[in-house]
Amino acid sequence: MTLEATHGRRLKRITVEDIDSLARGAAILGTGGGGDPYVGALLAKQAIEEFGPVELVSVDELPDDAFIVPIAAIGAPTVSVEKLDTVEKLHLTIEKLAASVNRTATHTACLEIGGSNSMLPIVAAAQLGIPLIDGDLIGRAFPEIQMGMAPLYGIQATPMALADEKGNTLVIEAIDSFWAERFARQASIEMGCNAFNSTYAMTGAQARESFVAGSMSFAIAIGDAVANAQHNNLNPCGVLAETLGGRVVHLGKVSDLQRQTTGGFAKGQAMIEGMGPDTGSVLSLHFQNEHLLATRDGTVVTTTPDLIIVVDAESAEPVTTENLRYGQRVCVLTAPSDPRWHTIEGLDLAGPGYFGYGVPSHRWDGTPEEHPEPIGRYRA
Amino acid sequence: MTLEATHGRRLKRITVEDIDSLARGAAILGTGGGGDPYVGALLAKQAIEEFGPVELVSVDELPDDAFIVPIAAIGAPTVSVEKLDTVEKLHLTIEKLAASVNRTATHTACLEIGGSNSMLPIVAAAQLGIPLIDGDLIGRAFPEIQMGMAPLYGIQATPMALADEKGNTLVIEAIDSFWAERFARQASIEMGCNAFNSTYAMTGAQARESFVAGSMSFAIAIGDAVANAQHNNLNPCGVLAETLGGRVVHLGKVSDLQRQTTGGFAKGQAMIEGMGPDTGSVLSLHFQNEHLLATRDGTVVTTTPDLIIVVDAESAEPVTTENLRYGQRVCVLTAPSDPRWHTIEGLDLAGPGYFGYGVPSHRWDGTPEEHPEPIGRYRA
Repeated sequence: MTLEATHGRRLKRITVEDIDSLARGAAILGTGGGGDPYVGALLAKQAIEEFGPVELVSVDELPDDAFIVPIAAIGAPTVSVEKLDTVEKLHLTIEKLAASVNRTATHTACLEIGGSNSMLPIVAAAQLGIPLIDGDLIGRAFPEIQMGMAPLYGIQATPMALADEKGNTLVIEAIDSFWAERFARQASIEMGCNAFNSTYAMTGAQARESFVAGSMSFAIAIGDAVANAQHNNLNPCGVLAETLGGRVVHLGKVSDLQRQTTGGFAKGQAMIEGMGPDTGSVLSLHFQNEHLLATRDGTVVTTTPDLIIVVDAESAEPVTTENLRYGQRVCVLTAPSDPRWHTIEGLDLAGPGYFGYGVPSHRWDGTPEEHPEPIGRYRA
Repeated sequence: MTLEATHGRRLKRITVEDIDSLARGAAILGTGGGGDPYVGALLAKQAIEEFGPVELVSVDELPDDAFIVPIAAIGAPTVSVEKLDTVEKLHLTIEKLAASVNRTATHTACLEIGGSNSMLPIVAAAQLGIPLIDGDLIGRAFPEIQMGMAPLYGIQATPMALADEKGNTLVIEAIDSFWAERFARQASIEMGCNAFNSTYAMTGAQARESFVAGSMSFAIAIGDAVANAQHNNLNPCGVLAETLGGRVVHLGKVSDLQRQTTGGFAKGQAMIEGMGPDTGSVLSLHFQNEHLLATRDGTVVTTTPDLIIVVDAESAEPVTTENLRYGQRVCVLTAPSDPRWHTIEGLDLAGPGYFGYGVPSHRWDGTPEEHPEPIGRYRA
């Protein structure tokens, strides 16, 4: 199943019953980042119980002059599992950002699809009583704010609003997305490595171009498929690979784990000693909030921007980077990212070169990236 | 001469002819901080030449509903002497701060009297065509933003606007002045350790209570007195001590200097080997942007919040912390700060304990601080 294939079964609203599948699927698409899905799911269920189901709107249905203010958490997921989100005032960043440009948000959206980051927009939509867009701005999770689809279309991550649970707020008007990231990162560190941010505010017309459309529905479909496979003993990892249009690359046990919370991120490396068909082989995972590079026995398997996904070997439940543990039995999968990440501009923003890994980009199927084209071909 | 004694001769406007004396006097009151007076003076003269003289208004003349938005540079002065201020858009922080509370600034003011920081408000006043207040919010310079007179009266350093020369701006709404300082310091580091900030916006009624009134006029009087002593061979350092109501504590040569630009500040220590009457004695100066502690041969001479001032031994021209050099011949003076800094709340904010020097507060005359009272006695 591909992203496009899910368009036919788009949901019209998100209820408490959808949350577990959405959180699971979004954490899988989050490639290790985007925060803990369990914590996020609790918050989303509570918000829906308090305020009612959230209307889910396709980008195709958006009026041209809709004003969309997305929201996400920013910080190190290693921190956010201990310093839990306090979401009473989650709507603040949306309101502050809209006020800074003398607008009111008509819709909110997911900045990045990821465990907790797919849930917070539901909380905000419920609190504000506005619809949520079925889509996000990456199609996966990435560690830095400028790594969005919007900059590929000339929309920068500024203005940006940040808030913490204590009530501190910042409105950043930066000269570009990179500067917005710098200020936001430092502020998020002061905020305890766990804060909320709204940015990439845009019109309905802009959203139709720059969103990864349908990714919330797709996440629910992924979550449903995994749950179905679990309940029917259908090899959840295999089903997941099929649903993602990707492949299983490694089955093994976490045999070494280095993880630091540094510079506002959870950075590190995990070694996964092969089991079963992969006995004798060691897969090495490099992450910065998200899994960005996988090598096996010294050879590149796949790199960012394609998806590197770690799930429990039995259940295919997602394992986020902050939840990786020594001795865990995991399955590592790869899957394609939105094709626009494979343009010249996309690879500049979020390819392995940006992170300094010193390897060329490799696609989910292991082939080296060849002849990327400019984003222009994807413009409306 | 004391601050009060200058009230009779307050200026009504600042012209190019006043700038050198004001810059000199303000840098002396700045106790080593507040930036280089020479660089600031060039900018102020240029602004007055372009936009005309700046009206200087006493706090007594302010309408109750005036809306005052002060301005200053924030950062490490060690950086600002190399990365020079670009002031075309200096007015931005004033405008952004006022806009964030749906007001327009009727006046601007000096956040802290100090070399460059007494000059930037002149530039902003000239650019915006609004009057400048004869006064500042400290009566000296201090390194951190919460160290203002306003917090003693319940006015916090929030909202705050920050801007850099590239065009990045931030509006911070923090829960108190300490949090405002944390966010502003990190942002100023990202901005290259040299940025502009506006905060402590207040009404005319609040300004009458919380400003150190007349400090711009006082700085000009100090600058004039030193210039007059230089031109008439009248022992500039002695004249300066008399003008400040303070004393000369040490004459010597900089024999050791440790200075780091760290955490967004210029921090360090200087040893001054005695000459002339002070031969055989060594004075040790501790600074964080400003001189905060002086000990001689192991004994405390004076501490913050009173003024510790370093000037050229011959001319009594101020030597800012970033301009201290090995081998310089300097005269060290001490002088009283605004008496409100000697309240319980003032000492909590800016006494030697806050900086971790581990010594009790000593006044300019060398006596230990005794029985400080609460700020309540200074309330209108």
